[in-house]
Amino acid sequence: MLAKAVHFFLVSLLLQWNGASAGKFEAYPSAHLLTGSATMNFGSSGLSIEVDADALSKQIDELAAFSDTPAPSVSRVIYTKNDIAARKYIKDAMRSAGLKVREDAIGNIFGRWEGTELTGAIGTGSHVDAIPHAGKYDGVVGVLGAIEAIRALRKSGFTPRKSLEVIMFTSEEPTRFGFGCLGSRAMAASKNIYDILERAVDKDNISFSEAAKSAGYLKEGQQLKDVAVANAAYSGFVELHIEQGPTLENEGVEIGIVTAIAAPASLQVDFKGDGGHAGAVLMPFRNDAGLAAAELSLAVETHVLASGSMDTVGTTGVLELHPGAVNSIPRESHLEIDVRDIDGNRRDIVVEKIHHSAKEISKRRNVILGNFKVVNQDPPARSGAAIVLAATLASQELGFSHKLMISRAYHDSLFMSRITPTGMIFIPCYKGYSHRPDEYASKEDISRGVQVLALTLAKLSGTS
Amino acid sequence: MLAKAVHFFLVSLLLQWNGASAGKFEAYPSAHLLTGSATMNFGSSGLSIEVDADALSKQIDELAAFSDTPAPSVSRVIYTKNDIAARKYIKDAMRSAGLKVREDAIGNIFGRWEGTELTGAIGTGSHVDAIPHAGKYDGVVGVLGAIEAIRALRKSGFTPRKSLEVIMFTSEEPTRFGFGCLGSRAMAASKNIYDILERAVDKDNISFSEAAKSAGYLKEGQQLKDVAVANAAYSGFVELHIEQGPTLENEGVEIGIVTAIAAPASLQVDFKGDGGHAGAVLMPFRNDAGLAAAELSLAVETHVLASGSMDTVGTTGVLELHPGAVNSIPRESHLEIDVRDIDGNRRDIVVEKIHHSAKEISKRRNVILGNFKVVNQDPPARSGAAIVLAATLASQELGFSHKLMISRAYHDSLFMSRITPTGMIFIPCYKGYSHRPDEYASKEDISRGVQVLALTLAKLSGTS
Repeated sequence: MLAKAVHFFLVSLLLQWNGASAGKFEAYPSAHLLTGSATMNFGSSGLSIEVDADALSKQIDELAAFSDTPAPSVSRVIYTKNDIAARKYIKDAMRSAGLKVREDAIGNIFGRWEGTELTGAIGTGSHVDAIPHAGKYDGVVGVLGAIEAIRALRKSGFTPRKSLEVIMFTSEEPTRFGFGCLGSRAMAASKNIYDILERAVDKDNISFSEAAKSAGYLKEGQQLKDVAVANAAYSGFVELHIEQGPTLENEGVEIGIVTAIAAPASLQVDFKGDGGHAGAVLMPFRNDAGLAAAELSLAVETHVLASGSMDTVGTTGVLELHPGAVNSIPRESHLEIDVRDIDGNRRDIVVEKIHHSAKEISKRRNVILGNFKVVNQDPPARSGAAIVLAATLASQELGFSHKLMISRAYHDSLFMSRITPTGMIFIPCYKGYSHRPDEYASKEDISRGVQVLALTLAKLSGTS
Repeated sequence: MLAKAVHFFLVSLLLQWNGASAGKFEAYPSAHLLTGSATMNFGSSGLSIEVDADALSKQIDELAAFSDTPAPSVSRVIYTKNDIAARKYIKDAMRSAGLKVREDAIGNIFGRWEGTELTGAIGTGSHVDAIPHAGKYDGVVGVLGAIEAIRALRKSGFTPRKSLEVIMFTSEEPTRFGFGCLGSRAMAASKNIYDILERAVDKDNISFSEAAKSAGYLKEGQQLKDVAVANAAYSGFVELHIEQGPTLENEGVEIGIVTAIAAPASLQVDFKGDGGHAGAVLMPFRNDAGLAAAELSLAVETHVLASGSMDTVGTTGVLELHPGAVNSIPRESHLEIDVRDIDGNRRDIVVEKIHHSAKEISKRRNVILGNFKVVNQDPPARSGAAIVLAATLASQELGFSHKLMISRAYHDSLFMSRITPTGMIFIPCYKGYSHRPDEYASKEDISRGVQVLALTLAKLSGTS
């Protein structure tokens, strides 16, 4: 009976992926599609998962204290003092959960629980870096929550067949070097990532390598490409995360299971004009780089709305003027633009329209389009069948309401999906707020998420 | 014959002031209008003014080295290390020109050559602070040039009847505290200036007083209002400056003599929205503070162009987004807007339209208009007849082509005109560029300006 229900369910899932599969995305060896389910216990695990929600929320608060800005805001930029302190905190937490800790050349941190079987491990994890003035749950729930899930599994008497590995990824946020998921991109040997990291500099012109070395990584003899992992290293990956959107809260659903991750693109645009004195240069003789930037940011909004799909979003998150003085006509402007869609082609059309607008504005306003750079333009990813199935079975077994959904934010899972079947577990967050100090997820929701994660890991690992 | 020509000339000047006098402006005791001319030598001074152009341009280069940014750019913000070093340089230069140096409570620097008559002095001078990434001539030509003018007068055997005083004003640029001409405003006891300075803080929340004290000013027992000067202290003021506009260069005229200074207003505007994750929050649920700012900056341009006068200018020189991350919807935006006109009323209508747009945008985009502050809204000023006349006679006597013109940039002269008849002498600058690293005035043009200044000072001081 149950087996039949599950079979029907699996079929319906696969149909939905086809639904979500408009546009191009990375394929992974289809063999993977089964790796997970091969050993999966489709029935009840019989495990009783006890999560210590108080201890976990205490840890979340303690980690939030490592911040460049005062509470409740959290600002933690990679390779800074507070990032290094947070990393130590995570490694200590992994060890006290009985995990064997190692770090790679750029500071991805791995905490491993060896299984009895010598196949690829089941990975789980997220990031703990935070953009300026952000909150304390984004990423953190998926790292500290994973460690708590391991703790709960031990307590339940579970022993893993496939090894379980908690991963803290380096720099999921693009804050310092202009593009995100550095750690997972590097693990997946994403296109040109090592060259890009070689060339990357922050706004103070500190190179990525300098910064990494200053934090104790890229040691003598280590190379960026050492970070790449073999496809065989993992047989699955699952990431617990706050939704960062309002759907689950609005619909009163406890658990979201992600079937696809939207495709992000990010752009950097520079305009150059002649500047001049704000009082002395008459309007007809101006070519104001700031007004060109203002027009482009509004054009981004226009083109995104014209896509006709709710799934298309675009944001000008950075707009900087130079010299940036009240009595000086802006001579240079710099924009950083983020465009996403679950449909990679539709997203690329918007990017093309933005490029066209930039050229038109520069011509009409007689400013130079100094730079129009597509920093990244990643394909969307769809989740691994086995992972979605395991998470769904886990939610069912635990009696939590759940739904299949799309992730519009991107995550390290987007890149992990290139080396192994990957899925995500979402929990509700207050009003969908994220990347702001009042980002919030309740202790109960976090606890439910950790229970589902633990049981999903158990199902994917298989019990000995 | 000459007297008759001069009389006709004076009348024509007065007619032109009436032309320039649309809009309200500060009146000064009309007695002043004659003070200067009472003792003025209308005929040839018989002085031979020899300016050492090489020494002067060497000094300009030396002063430019005190900068927070590399050459050719100059960045010198008040009360910083480089500003303090520049002040020492100016005081030394004044002393070596035989001037008696004193400083007031906020760091206006005075170098005095005592005259034989105990009436108010003839002042001259400008500023040496520079906005970020500016050039080396704005202001500096009027300070080092004035010291060179004094040197040349001594060499010519001139002895002043009225005392001559070179002034270096504190913070003509608004860079650090958001509004300009702090030194001259304080000397003229401009409306609320002392309260404003009491409350002023920079972007790091350092108060004006703290900053002044750190630079060795506002000493124990000194007060801001000590800076005010009596009307009787000066019987005239003249400022030498680069035009900061292209008129003189385009028309091939060597000297510009300013009859009126445009009226500046500056605004600070803040918008607040909900922010959120650039991927997760769908377009219909956004209230993007950055797009509100972009719209307002374009509205400034629209309203200025609608004034129908070439003399109306408006600039959004500062537009800042918070948190300012590529994957974060701007939650807060801050604009600083500059609007000027030689007609104060027309300028105020534009400011009103900008306020209306800010309210309309905040309503339509559902963002909070957190702040709409008119930081300053100064009336225009017209020059003193005696000063314009003396500068015109000086240019004539030296055989330099000259024209009467309006200053669209504002200067410390705008505030000095509130305590004494004031005028300005402009020299051409390359393409009218200013507030940028390639701001340039030729050695020859600077030399001509200094000669006219010297002879103008001689005529206003009267010889013993």
